[in-house]
Amino acid sequence: MLSGERFSVEYRLSGNEQEAYAKAKDICIEQTVEFPEELLPDNFIREEVVGKIESFRSGRDCHYAVISYAIETAADEITQLLNVIFGNSSIKPGIRVEALQLSGSLLKLFAGPRFGRDGLRNLLDVPKRPLLFTALKPMGLSAEELAQMAYQLALGGIDIIKDDHGLTNQKFAPFDERVSRCAAAVAKANSQTGQQCIFVANVTAPGQQTVERAYQAKAAGAGGLMIAPALTGLSVMQQLADDETLGLPVFSHPAFQGSYALSAGHGISHPVLFGQLARLAGADATIYPNFGGRFSFSRTECEDIAEACAAPLGAVRPIFPSPGGGMTLEKVPELLAVYGREVIFLIGGGLVKHSPDLIHNCRYFREMVEKF
Amino acid sequence: MLSGERFSVEYRLSGNEQEAYAKAKDICIEQTVEFPEELLPDNFIREEVVGKIESFRSGRDCHYAVISYAIETAADEITQLLNVIFGNSSIKPGIRVEALQLSGSLLKLFAGPRFGRDGLRNLLDVPKRPLLFTALKPMGLSAEELAQMAYQLALGGIDIIKDDHGLTNQKFAPFDERVSRCAAAVAKANSQTGQQCIFVANVTAPGQQTVERAYQAKAAGAGGLMIAPALTGLSVMQQLADDETLGLPVFSHPAFQGSYALSAGHGISHPVLFGQLARLAGADATIYPNFGGRFSFSRTECEDIAEACAAPLGAVRPIFPSPGGGMTLEKVPELLAVYGREVIFLIGGGLVKHSPDLIHNCRYFREMVEKF
Repeated sequence: MLSGERFSVEYRLSGNEQEAYAKAKDICIEQTVEFPEELLPDNFIREEVVGKIESFRSGRDCHYAVISYAIETAADEITQLLNVIFGNSSIKPGIRVEALQLSGSLLKLFAGPRFGRDGLRNLLDVPKRPLLFTALKPMGLSAEELAQMAYQLALGGIDIIKDDHGLTNQKFAPFDERVSRCAAAVAKANSQTGQQCIFVANVTAPGQQTVERAYQAKAAGAGGLMIAPALTGLSVMQQLADDETLGLPVFSHPAFQGSYALSAGHGISHPVLFGQLARLAGADATIYPNFGGRFSFSRTECEDIAEACAAPLGAVRPIFPSPGGGMTLEKVPELLAVYGREVIFLIGGGLVKHSPDLIHNCRYFREMVEKF
Repeated sequence: MLSGERFSVEYRLSGNEQEAYAKAKDICIEQTVEFPEELLPDNFIREEVVGKIESFRSGRDCHYAVISYAIETAADEITQLLNVIFGNSSIKPGIRVEALQLSGSLLKLFAGPRFGRDGLRNLLDVPKRPLLFTALKPMGLSAEELAQMAYQLALGGIDIIKDDHGLTNQKFAPFDERVSRCAAAVAKANSQTGQQCIFVANVTAPGQQTVERAYQAKAAGAGGLMIAPALTGLSVMQQLADDETLGLPVFSHPAFQGSYALSAGHGISHPVLFGQLARLAGADATIYPNFGGRFSFSRTECEDIAEACAAPLGAVRPIFPSPGGGMTLEKVPELLAVYGREVIFLIGGGLVKHSPDLIHNCRYFREMVEKF
């Protein structure tokens, strides 16, 4: 009945050894048949559909179980794959998804990012150095004001200029007008600098409107798309990435996603959430809050994300980690030491704050990473 | 520039009073302009776009701030409304959304559930007693076996029979075949019992496929739709509810949603997550894990959800709380005392476990709630 192929999930389990083992056994049932074990039919359902504990070990203050599932349980769908990994178990305390080991034919389902690191470097014509990324803000500026800002940022040598993630279709700067003006401003700057800066439109919207906005954005000249998958559903990001007609790079934003990552004892680990899942779902770059800024991720957690962005994952391309959130220009040298050159630095407010001359600030940012 | 109308969010903040107040001030910026305060333009952006602390009080071991936002920040979109409420703040520790107070014109944007309590009672022809709800499982059974089970459950007097939330489009029981067979089995039982039992299809799927499956389900005779909004995006549930051509009741499932609710110090409160947001997004019933079962919600948390299902919310109809998850028939009397009659009891495995005779078990369940 089944192919015998299985994928596996490593869970971090709290409690003493006995409790943690009981949790692991419970997960095998909860994530699959959700049925009294003693009443299961004595066939492939009991033998193969129910999850299997492949290994169990104890850490310093917790335990780790690797549980495998028949690939058929995931029904070739990213939504159901997430459901098998952590659907009902997300509602139980002391369970954290630490790592995913997807099998060959499951990985083949995910085309992943269309561009990946090499593709994005080609598109932007930046072969080696870290990429520079910034956001248009504050919310409340008009489309014209945002476009003027985009023009200066592009003149200053930024590679990627995005909508702030809170800009959607507010009356201050309606989507269509904003994207047209900002894309035009960036194109004008490119014609002066000879660079290939792109404007990335935030297309996060209800239901199918995300895809509609992506098409509008492309028509208006945007060179990339940003989406917050926790707001739209992860599968909508995959839809954007898989759409050949769109053919634009996709930037994943972490808004509303934090609750999965903030507790060491619960949720989904940083590398799985911001690395592996973003990559499977087609992000070319994954934005996350950097250590040392105004968020709480640790340096190790950020390094784990960066590593997951490039670790082997079938034929799925490596993507860029894009740390941001309260970063300042002063921190760039330290960040270069941590991330190396395969990174997109996202600096928003910090770029504006450095000095009153925005173009100058961008050039300073650019020089710092060029020295590397 | 702005209407002056504002909505507000109550946040629970951890830390000492000074730290909590600083968090509240930070939220005002983070959730709106995300920009250095000192550099904001001295106009309506600083005055109205930035969130405002409307009140601040101290609780036993935490603090509460009510912060208001201009309705224009939410751009008339449920995705952006969620983003203003908890987008980036979800990535900061010690912040929990406790309550929402939406304003008049914001509430008007949400049609909410199409049926609500009265509509669902009419549809099922059950004017007064609690409604009975169960799930087809285990995963691995064929469409024919599941339909046979559905037939017995409907004969036994269950009102609503749904796919288990893990059944999507697995090869064991492909979506189309399963829904057709199960809907037909329920219709056959109805013709014998004279009841109006409905079969509810799980339409949770990637991207736009959710809506496509909903149409397939309707065509195949399903009487309702189940969706796990944390897997699809909350806005997709709203799309199902708002679709007049579909015109089917919607059941919200909590899979993958738990990480928002499990920590008292972080995330989104139970009544907001499972009550208010589910209702705004069009659920006619909200499924959540009951207290005392195999999940960890407390009795108070469950009561809070039930209360939020019916509390005044503009013109949005009251919906049914649907506690489930490891419930047994033995617990029904206690649950009746807690929830009263405005409830949908979801019993899955417990119904199968009670005795080997499934029809008998259903009748027993039915008799217990009819006595009430």
